[in-house]
Order: sequence, then C-alpha cells, then structure tokens
Amino acid sequence: MDALVRPTLLINESTVRANIARMVRKAARHQLTFRPHFKTHQSQQIARWYREEGVTCCTVSSVQMASYFAGDGWQDITIAFPLNPREADSIHQLASHVHLNLVAVNVEALELLLTQRQVAASIWIEVDTGYHRTGVDPDHAASIESILQTLARYPHVSFAGFLSHAGHSYKARSAAAIQSIHDEDLRIMKKLKADYQARYPGIKLSMGDTPSCSVCENFEGVDEIRPGNFVFYDLTQVAIGSCTHEQIALVMACPVVAVYPHRQEVIIHGGGVHFSKDSLVNTQGVTHFGRVVALQGNEWLLPPQPAFVRSLSQEHGIVTGPPDWVAAIKVGDMLGILPVHACLTADAMGEFLTTTNSRIAMM
Amino acid sequence: MDALVRPTLLINESTVRANIARMVRKAARHQLTFRPHFKTHQSQQIARWYREEGVTCCTVSSVQMASYFAGDGWQDITIAFPLNPREADSIHQLASHVHLNLVAVNVEALELLLTQRQVAASIWIEVDTGYHRTGVDPDHAASIESILQTLARYPHVSFAGFLSHAGHSYKARSAAAIQSIHDEDLRIMKKLKADYQARYPGIKLSMGDTPSCSVCENFEGVDEIRPGNFVFYDLTQVAIGSCTHEQIALVMACPVVAVYPHRQEVIIHGGGVHFSKDSLVNTQGVTHFGRVVALQGNEWLLPPQPAFVRSLSQEHGIVTGPPDWVAAIKVGDMLGILPVHACLTADAMGEFLTTTNSRIAMM
Repeated sequence: MDALVRPTLLINESTVRANIARMVRKAARHQLTFRPHFKTHQSQQIARWYREEGVTCCTVSSVQMASYFAGDGWQDITIAFPLNPREADSIHQLASHVHLNLVAVNVEALELLLTQRQVAASIWIEVDTGYHRTGVDPDHAASIESILQTLARYPHVSFAGFLSHAGHSYKARSAAAIQSIHDEDLRIMKKLKADYQARYPGIKLSMGDTPSCSVCENFEGVDEIRPGNFVFYDLTQVAIGSCTHEQIALVMACPVVAVYPHRQEVIIHGGGVHFSKDSLVNTQGVTHFGRVVALQGNEWLLPPQPAFVRSLSQEHGIVTGPPDWVAAIKVGDMLGILPVHACLTADAMGEFLTTTNSRIAMM
Repeated sequence: MDALVRPTLLINESTVRANIARMVRKAARHQLTFRPHFKTHQSQQIARWYREEGVTCCTVSSVQMASYFAGDGWQDITIAFPLNPREADSIHQLASHVHLNLVAVNVEALELLLTQRQVAASIWIEVDTGYHRTGVDPDHAASIESILQTLARYPHVSFAGFLSHAGHSYKARSAAAIQSIHDEDLRIMKKLKADYQARYPGIKLSMGDTPSCSVCENFEGVDEIRPGNFVFYDLTQVAIGSCTHEQIALVMACPVVAVYPHRQEVIIHGGGVHFSKDSLVNTQGVTHFGRVVALQGNEWLLPPQPAFVRSLSQEHGIVTGPPDWVAAIKVGDMLGILPVHACLTADAMGEFLTTTNSRIAMM
C-alpha cells in the first residue's frame, strides 16, 4: 500500500475467484450453461480465471470486445447488444473464426446485416420482459414472426432461442423484489419456449442478471445464465441485496491531499475520470459516489462509522464522515473507496492491481 | 459520416480553433497571461493549435498529464490540483526539466513533499473563494502564513501568488449569476494581493473558469486566466450561459440500433462508457445526458424539436423525442449527440475524429 502514489483500482484475486467459483457451482447445480458477461472486467487475464473453473463461453457488449476475447481463444461468444448493421464487416470477419451469437431486437437491423454479408451466426431474439430498454414485446407475435421469416431466408444463420435481460432488477432493494422480477421474466420466457419449440426444436432460453443469479434458486426451463457484475460486485449490488460488503472484490485506493476538519471533509485524488459518475442513495437518504473502507495491508475493512464520497469533479473527490473519523485522517494517507458501479469504474480505470501486486491489463 | 460504424467523438477543428482564438484575444485585450487548462482535450495535437496562437504555458490536472505535455515541449506547466506528496519522485523528475507550478492548499503536503525531495518549483497558494472544494480560507491568515513560513525554509521553491477556481460558477444559470460569483472571487483575490505584495513583490493572481472567462469583462488586478472547457464547450456551458449551441465544437456520433415509435424512443450505441454520466436538467425540468443534433455532412444542426438522451447504461443510450422526430429515424442511422460535459466525454472516449476525417490522439 505504501508504494501506491495515485488513484489505483485494487482487486482481491481470492475474492474474485471465490465469486466466480460460487456462480460456477450455482450454474452446475441448476444444470445451466454459464456464459458470464465479460463487460465488467474486460480482461483476458481475468477471463482465464473463469476458464480454470471450466467456463468455455462468454458474453460481451460490443463487437470490439468480442474480438478482444476471441484473441485469447474464446470460441463461443454472445454479443449481448442489439446488432449494429454498420459493423457488418467486423461481425462477418469475427464470425468466420468463432461461434458468434448475435442479438436481434428488430427485423430491420437483421436485414441490413444479412443483405450486406453472409454472416454465419446464431441469432437470439431479445425479449423485453419488463426492463423496457430493448427487445421485442413478447405479446407481439408479429415482431417475432418477422424476425423468424428473415432468418429462414438466410441459410448461414440459425435461430438459437430467446434472450432477456431483466435490468429492472437493479431498481430492486430486497430479495423479494428481485424474486418477483425474476419470476415474471421466467414466466414470459417459458411461455415463449413452449410456444415455439415444436416449430424450432432445440431453441434455448438465455437469462440472468447479477441480482437474480445471486439470489434466486428457480431456473426451471432456463438453458443459460449471463451475469457479469458478480465477479466484483459493488455498493449497488449490496443495496439491491445481491451480496455482502465482504464479497466486493475491488476497491479504489485514493491519496488524501487535504483535510478540512471544520467541514468534516477530506479531499482525495479520485474523481469522475476514475470512478465514472454513477451514484447511489444511502440508508440515510444521502446521494453518494462511494463508501470509505480502511486499507490494512492487503485487506480492507468497513469502519464502524460510515464515510462517503459525496461529490466528484474531474480529478477531485470530496469525502464526508463523522468528526472522529475525519480527525484521524492525514494528508498523505491512502483511503479505500468501494465503488458504486464496478463496471463503469473498471472501464474508467483501464487496469487493475491485485492486492498481491500484479498488474492486470484490460482491453 | 457513412464510414462511421460505432460511437465516435467528432470535433469540428474550425470551431475549436475559433474558440481558442476568441479566448486568446480576450486575454490579450485584458493583458492577461493565458494559461489554458488542458484537462478538457488531453491532446498534444490540440495543444499545438494553442501554440499556433502564441500560447506558451498551460494548466493540467495531474502529474501524469504534466509529463505528457512536457513530452511535446511545454516548458511552463501548472498542476492545478493540490500537490500529492506521494508523487514526490515524479514531481521532482518533472521539475528538473520544466518550469513547474504547484498548488499548495495546506502546509502538511508541502512539508511532506519538500522533506523528501529538493523540488525546484513555483508554489501557488490556492484560495477558497466560495466553491468550498479545496483551498485556504482567505480570512484565515494563519493558514497562509504557515505555508509562507515553510516556503521560506526551502530555497528551491518560490512563492508565485494566489490561485483560485470559482467552480461554483457551474451552478450559475445566467450571466448575472456568473458575474456575481466572479466579482466576489475578484474582490477576495485583489485583497490578498494588496495584503501580501509589499512583502512579496511580484506575486500574481491566477483565476478564471470557463463561465467567468466567457462572460465577464472585469479582470483588473488579475495576472492570468486558466479556463479549459471553452475549447469545446458543451450543453452545461450553454445552460450556464457561457456559449451558444453553435460554439460547441464536439459531438458524439452514435449508431441507431432500435426504434420504438410507440414509446417515442430510439436506442443508440452510446452509453456510460462513452459519455460518462454527468447529467443536466433541461428547460422542461427533465434530467438528460445529451441532446440530439442532426448530422449533415461535416456539420451538425439543432432540430426544430428537441430530443434528449434520457438514460444511459454501459453501452446503450435511450433517446426520447417527439413522435414526428422518432418516426423519421431508421435503424442504421447515425445520430449526433451534444454531450453534457465535454471533459468527461473526451476522457471516456480517448480519441477524437475531426469532421475532415483526421484521428486525433489523447493522452
């Protein structure tokens, strides 16, 4: 810790590996294909830790990310983002050497892609099961039918099944709320499978965000899960009820550059370019950008009295805490900050340092 | 525009150069040293456009950024962030070959730095003129005195003067509000100069954020200004009253991947990893993450009816607009989005493309 000089994103490899192993066991227990989302870590090296647990397929959020992981031997990749026909060339190139799974949310993008290039890929139809971001309306059979008709006209593509992302689980604040969202997701998806499997034997259901995969135990009829955030977890997942603070596998280490006891504030080097700017409302109703932990050797510990990052500018963070806590902080200290949203913080930082002092590169 | 396939941060070089030239002229008119903040663009190439206008010194927000610009010949650099004694080695190394200006906000960091290394640098005392982020209380002479006493004990450092950043101008929503913040900043700073200049002849005042430098015309007693954002401007600066939409020099080009007319929504590839997540409240009271413009050739135009990015996830953006506008958007189109905060968007993207098709690298 003494060697750290600037904002540094630390990960505890043991906690990361434990998070991976727990989800691998859960998928196995429910006989699910485990296709973890790699957008959270964006690291070939961390992806290898999954491979050591027997994971052979993955999910990514962009064509570039798919190419990056294909470059380290991943041969079965789902790009869980609506296919972008402007990327036809790179999709075609990628599909020539890996088993590529693409997501169709409408017939237009599919037509624009397939008329440009003979892309050999499995196509999943994304279903909107309540998040209302992307996906076809499950009650609108004509939308599904138009996609299926298009697929039938192009021999290089096949219909893989239905895929959903119940991202509204991120608004949940209890296990019961997560369960309710998951149950509805499952109900819609199972009905679709029942409706279409006579015509398309072998179609599958792909589901599973971090909250539902962490909390729920009913996956009957589901074929694969795609959680991503669980590899690190974060304060949002604690607030949702997906994990404990102890399961959070990453922490930002930030140098203290000023202490203002009369304002009960500490200024750190650590701003919007490091954390990104997702915020969370704590149990006292205060919006914040991270929670302080004490860095002790290779560990971090929640202090008895909570302190939070209440504001971020480009490079500055303003941390506020109780007077006793502020009084003990000195200029030159390093503070640990648990991030609100691990995925965006990792993306902003671009690399990790393990608590055993190994640098881990990202895409 | 047809060649763009994924989220791309476009800049209009003519607008950037016009923004630079306008501020150069303003500084000259008021006989101010112009020390622009380079954290907004973080690009050696764009820094050269300043040099072509006669600018010879700059401001940065980190030691790493100072090293990056020193690497392209910048010889007089202010690191406008409270000095971090953990970076003593890199500060010392940098100070050995450029004229380095450091910012002291307390005596502790200064002592920790100077007891470690004989850093040859000019030291500015940052004054809190109302933003309440960092800086000494101007009414607390003992804080200033303790810093001056420390400087007197180390012969390699000199006292350069007082520096402020009236960042609370970003909360202003009118020229009058900006003017009022600037007037108070100026009043405090001029009093400090008057109080200390007999003892320290030649001390200077460094001030000037983008709103005050764009709007105000009274800089009597000020020696240098350090605005940064004006090089690109953004929607926040339009809301503050610093600029017009036409002066915004950058736009994100994002592919449309889905259109939902019944929801009045368009889904773009363009999310939190591209825009970062600063938001703004529009004149209808709606929080948003960017405003749509029509991309036409190498230009962009505000459409008659406004459309906004109402939500961002990691890679998805949800754009909402009036029914007529949504009805005209097709999958495969590229939308232009004016960013809420140019600095964070540029940092997230990591490179620019000019509208004349040149790639511009960033740090």
